[in-house]
Amino acid sequence: MANTKFIKSEFFFEEDVRESVAEVPVDKHQPWPENEKLKVVGKEIPRIDGYDKTSGTALYTFDINLPHMAHAKILRSVWPHARIKSIDTTQAENLPGVLAVITHKNIPEIKWFEDSFLFDTKIRYEGEEIAGIAAETEEIAEKALKLIKIEVEELDFTVDPGQAMKETAPKIHEGGNIVGGNPFTYERGNFEEGIKNADAIIEETYSTQVVVHNPTEPHCSVANWDGDKLTVWDSTQAIFTVRGVVSRALNIPENNVRVIKKYMGGGFGSKLAGGKYTVIAALLAKKTGRPVRLTLDRREMNLAVGNRPDSVQSLKLGAKKDGTLTAMSHYAYGSSGAYQSGAGCSWPFRTVYQCPNVKVEEYTVYINAGPGRPFRAPGHVQGTFAMDSAIDLLAGRINMDPLEFRLKNYAEKDQVYNIPYTSKKLREAYEAGAKAIGWEKRNKQPGVGTGRYKTGIGMGTQIWWGGGGPPAYVTLKLNRDYSVEVLAGSQDLGTGTYTFVAQVASEVLEIPMERISVILGDTGVVPYGPPSGGSVTSPSISPAVRDAAEQMKQKLMKAAAAVLSLKENDLVYKNGTVSSKSDPSKSIFLSDIMGKINEPVLVTTGAREANPEGYMIQTFGAQFADVEVDTLTGKVRVKKIVAAHDIGRVLNRTLLENQFHGGIIQGIGFALMEERIIDGNTGKVLTTNLHDYKLPLITDMPEIEVIIVSEGDPMISNTGVKGIGEPAHIPTAAAIANAIFNATGVQIKSTPMTPDKVLMALSQNS
Amino acid sequence: MANTKFIKSEFFFEEDVRESVAEVPVDKHQPWPENEKLKVVGKEIPRIDGYDKTSGTALYTFDINLPHMAHAKILRSVWPHARIKSIDTTQAENLPGVLAVITHKNIPEIKWFEDSFLFDTKIRYEGEEIAGIAAETEEIAEKALKLIKIEVEELDFTVDPGQAMKETAPKIHEGGNIVGGNPFTYERGNFEEGIKNADAIIEETYSTQVVVHNPTEPHCSVANWDGDKLTVWDSTQAIFTVRGVVSRALNIPENNVRVIKKYMGGGFGSKLAGGKYTVIAALLAKKTGRPVRLTLDRREMNLAVGNRPDSVQSLKLGAKKDGTLTAMSHYAYGSSGAYQSGAGCSWPFRTVYQCPNVKVEEYTVYINAGPGRPFRAPGHVQGTFAMDSAIDLLAGRINMDPLEFRLKNYAEKDQVYNIPYTSKKLREAYEAGAKAIGWEKRNKQPGVGTGRYKTGIGMGTQIWWGGGGPPAYVTLKLNRDYSVEVLAGSQDLGTGTYTFVAQVASEVLEIPMERISVILGDTGVVPYGPPSGGSVTSPSISPAVRDAAEQMKQKLMKAAAAVLSLKENDLVYKNGTVSSKSDPSKSIFLSDIMGKINEPVLVTTGAREANPEGYMIQTFGAQFADVEVDTLTGKVRVKKIVAAHDIGRVLNRTLLENQFHGGIIQGIGFALMEERIIDGNTGKVLTTNLHDYKLPLITDMPEIEVIIVSEGDPMISNTGVKGIGEPAHIPTAAAIANAIFNATGVQIKSTPMTPDKVLMALSQNS
Repeated sequence: MANTKFIKSEFFFEEDVRESVAEVPVDKHQPWPENEKLKVVGKEIPRIDGYDKTSGTALYTFDINLPHMAHAKILRSVWPHARIKSIDTTQAENLPGVLAVITHKNIPEIKWFEDSFLFDTKIRYEGEEIAGIAAETEEIAEKALKLIKIEVEELDFTVDPGQAMKETAPKIHEGGNIVGGNPFTYERGNFEEGIKNADAIIEETYSTQVVVHNPTEPHCSVANWDGDKLTVWDSTQAIFTVRGVVSRALNIPENNVRVIKKYMGGGFGSKLAGGKYTVIAALLAKKTGRPVRLTLDRREMNLAVGNRPDSVQSLKLGAKKDGTLTAMSHYAYGSSGAYQSGAGCSWPFRTVYQCPNVKVEEYTVYINAGPGRPFRAPGHVQGTFAMDSAIDLLAGRINMDPLEFRLKNYAEKDQVYNIPYTSKKLREAYEAGAKAIGWEKRNKQPGVGTGRYKTGIGMGTQIWWGGGGPPAYVTLKLNRDYSVEVLAGSQDLGTGTYTFVAQVASEVLEIPMERISVILGDTGVVPYGPPSGGSVTSPSISPAVRDAAEQMKQKLMKAAAAVLSLKENDLVYKNGTVSSKSDPSKSIFLSDIMGKINEPVLVTTGAREANPEGYMIQTFGAQFADVEVDTLTGKVRVKKIVAAHDIGRVLNRTLLENQFHGGIIQGIGFALMEERIIDGNTGKVLTTNLHDYKLPLITDMPEIEVIIVSEGDPMISNTGVKGIGEPAHIPTAAAIANAIFNATGVQIKSTPMTPDKVLMALSQNS
Repeated sequence: MANTKFIKSEFFFEEDVRESVAEVPVDKHQPWPENEKLKVVGKEIPRIDGYDKTSGTALYTFDINLPHMAHAKILRSVWPHARIKSIDTTQAENLPGVLAVITHKNIPEIKWFEDSFLFDTKIRYEGEEIAGIAAETEEIAEKALKLIKIEVEELDFTVDPGQAMKETAPKIHEGGNIVGGNPFTYERGNFEEGIKNADAIIEETYSTQVVVHNPTEPHCSVANWDGDKLTVWDSTQAIFTVRGVVSRALNIPENNVRVIKKYMGGGFGSKLAGGKYTVIAALLAKKTGRPVRLTLDRREMNLAVGNRPDSVQSLKLGAKKDGTLTAMSHYAYGSSGAYQSGAGCSWPFRTVYQCPNVKVEEYTVYINAGPGRPFRAPGHVQGTFAMDSAIDLLAGRINMDPLEFRLKNYAEKDQVYNIPYTSKKLREAYEAGAKAIGWEKRNKQPGVGTGRYKTGIGMGTQIWWGGGGPPAYVTLKLNRDYSVEVLAGSQDLGTGTYTFVAQVASEVLEIPMERISVILGDTGVVPYGPPSGGSVTSPSISPAVRDAAEQMKQKLMKAAAAVLSLKENDLVYKNGTVSSKSDPSKSIFLSDIMGKINEPVLVTTGAREANPEGYMIQTFGAQFADVEVDTLTGKVRVKKIVAAHDIGRVLNRTLLENQFHGGIIQGIGFALMEERIIDGNTGKVLTTNLHDYKLPLITDMPEIEVIIVSEGDPMISNTGVKGIGEPAHIPTAAAIANAIFNATGVQIKSTPMTPDKVLMALSQNS
């Protein structure tokens, strides 16, 4: 509302998936007590969709097989930068089995990012969409792609953001290569004064690479028209976003588009927006009058559906001898690819450590490469890597323990908006994590060890929103046989949404989990909820489930009072039975209540309440890495990660650990091996398969210990849950970098910290 | 509730589809003004599903075609009464293409009506289910039916209820042939005293035949299992009832069963319960591991899925010379078929006309025939035929105009529960109807005309519940592009539910109908609502739609107040725009409100409020028939029907007239031609196709004039709507009978009033 203090992050240029404002406040329910006093919530409960997934009966988008279905492929640019002069699709159309070919010539003009179109005549990166083909089989469609003849004018290209920022660089968009024309800037206090007051100063440049999401399940859409109604099965993190994108692209109302996604094999941000492939599938389905399936292959995924922007970050930090930070500056730039996506990474830098004098200037830069997309904690992974590396360096300069240094500069409140946190238990996370990793065993002097294998311990700090918020709705249907359907405005990425929704409903209604069905991922069925990104799902949805279930309990209590002719305040609810406190012989089971009032199904709708005004909601945590560096080969082995976090209430310990395992191994991938490489001479991506693009393997998995220091954040919602998707991943790379530093005495200032870089650094140091 | 005065009818033994009790009162909204002040409601708006239906794109259950689907048929008894000694299915199973055969021998015992089972070893009527077969094609399944060998012990049977009531009759169930063992009785005042005070007395016996619903669309189920989840596409008037029946039969929780029905070609009560065919389809699908479709043919529909019980009604009525009714008695019996269904028909007799002394005794009797089922106004059509025939006879005895006689005995309040009506405009209906038919032109002396063709005018009076009530829920989703989805807990029989739901939402939100999608008929998607029977759909659902839409408007107003920084009471809502009353330059369209508060979809759930306590809700009406009797052939031609009714508010004039057209032509079928005939010697039904069972044709359609005298009933709900499905049909036959009486001077006391009966009566009179 007008006078609501609403903290929005700067990192989402498109559909913001985090905080929101509720116009209608929903009553908060009494906060739950600690988990040990709850029966279902917080427990180690296996995921309820586990059998379906492990038995292979779970249907993913690719498994959707409609009668008479056609198959589609996309023709993509082989040029990094070009202008199309002509397209001839005659030969492709004449290939037997080809059903339809669409290009910019025969479809309505559909606007896409900024000044571009679905099929644009200006090509801005290798892999950009030029045409779509539907055919009887995928093989025929693939063959037909090669029969399309294109004449282009090749343009000079740039694939390096540092070069792209220059005036002389080829322009990717008319407005120049700096997104928005200007850098993002931020300043508090007086940086120059702060530096003057410092006893020790460091000035360093760190850089991070572009990584690609590469979820297990490929991006896929199946489109089917029924008259003017379109159904799309889509592998997406955001059913309602896809609905909106498709509706606007095709110029049909949203209620004529239904988007379905039951199961999903990961997204990590690459499936947060509606993809061009989805709209192309819908257009081809319309044109052919048949259902159309369009699945991207691994090469397309590595070229065209998003990536984490790279970064070059120049930091200058000053501290007094006692460890007090006096000044910090952060100058950075990163590539957004050919289309707009934020490359900013300064939020941790501005908020994690107490510092009165801070200056930030950062640029997002267009280059001729696949578009950047939010990737598990946009900006935070790269920002934290640089910041926490610099902090360790600075602590070393004044001979201070890096953890002690962090505690010295502990921020009690948010420094950007100057408001308190709803809760912050980072100190407890530091203490618990340090104890678990054996912080005292670290090398007091970095690199002091001897021999081929050197070990070290390092840490990184995490901050992230993750408080969720409205709008998020849940419809709950209680049937007379005490089976329950919960329709939640959400979708499951594979993170366990099905399970925690059932847990919360089970906790409140005291009905066994087995009696509860959870329905997600269908815009035609579920009410509404946010995209599953930004760690908002559990903090947004779980309170709405609780609200719906509490309303249901109230309905049952009210009805029972009438049926038993007792006062409501004389009644108690336990295991689905309402009993009189004064006369326990009077009791009635919920099915019987429903029978008496002739309501075979009771229905409630719950909603996520508004977040408190004037407070900052953040998750906090620290990860500690214990690594071994092979000084002969340069190979780093992560032996153990301790993750100690404040993420509010744990809904399910098993699912929580799953999330941490995934986040940490993805952090190891970022830290040590993953990298998209573009050949600067040709503008071609060299890493378009999983042989060339190195993902971590099961053999790279360290021992992981997860410690949660929080019991819930009662200020934010009735469940007090914060999200964990991003927090689990943010500080891993920083912790590993600092552990390598602790082991070897040298900092690797560029990710991925591959053996060649480690060896190079070691040789320069010796 | 305990202290809620709750009026339930006696006519529904199974799932009651009419009144209910809400445990949680829902706020009533201000009643709407008369229709002429509304913009959408009440107007002649074509049905929104009209194009789908007339173009053939609408999918009915039979159109559901799943990959790998098998086809099923049911083996039915050829004996009216028998005990199965053995079944040998070997040959059937060995027929190539047969996938599964189920009988009582290889499925779990599934209880059905009373003491019977899904597949019972005791056969109680010709057409009863014995086995189910699934095969690759329907033809193979049909062929396999003939290969099942059955040995039975044939039992004596009875197909006449009068005979069946006797002690010596063959027993169809252990407890004897009178359902419940005793008659239903009712008495008020002192009948014998009333008769003593009468100046004129008549004593007559009327009888009505069994008619079969025979909807256009055959009964059909498609069952498909996905693990332990079952989806059933079913041609049903009651998705939630079918869900319950299937869930209980298969012993699985209700949330594991999803019942879907999008379009339907009529039911008239025959599709109100879950059918055996649905459970058989589910069992065969489980056994074969494939989807199974099972469609009944016309013969099966005429044997086994319900019918309207016949009746024999002996009436004794007394009146004073001035027309005051002094006493009425009603002794009746009717057949329920082989399984329990109420044959009672005395409600109109007890309530339509003011009379202090009334006595009723009525029996429902088992016979060896297909089970009775509710059929468009259970009991009322046959009861009204007898009652209104007797009234005309009695009026004639004292030389009083039958309409004057009815007005003389006008009941101002309900006489059974001695409570007022929420509204009653029967007097206005009488007046308007009489005027429209030209009542003054009727034969002052019945039968006075001369010549081959004699004409006459007659009337009948209608009473019926039709007030609806809770539980009925509606979820409304407003999208940012001001498209709307309304998910209503209901299903459409073909009566226009899709359309009126959209109208009500459009009226409140002031959004064009084209922007509104209505979703019905899917237990997995819609909240909850009553079966579509008993004329409850529009009176139950329309207030829930209005409630959901009004809540949505309130949400928008509240949000707009905050966004515009104005007070809510300064705001006015018009055409989706909220404006300031004091400063009209300040206004905001709903999409912009939603954008400002970052809610891409707003969700509300509405519910039907409780009916008022201590009041009787009834619909009222009178139909007037103008007929021509060919005294040479005995053929009756209905020239015109005027239907004048009090049914609360008209939601859609076009749909209303459609309902009346259907109800009246069905009334003509009942009055003049339809009849199920069983051969008493063999126990076999002789009318199992539409050649032998005579339905009215388009050529039988009279001129119809529909007059609605009511503007809404603000006491019952926020829309003030009463149902019209039953009211449209109830008095037609009585009006025709009285018109024949008026034309010829003789009463035909038995329906259908076929030419042979007319000629016989004329010859006896001359």
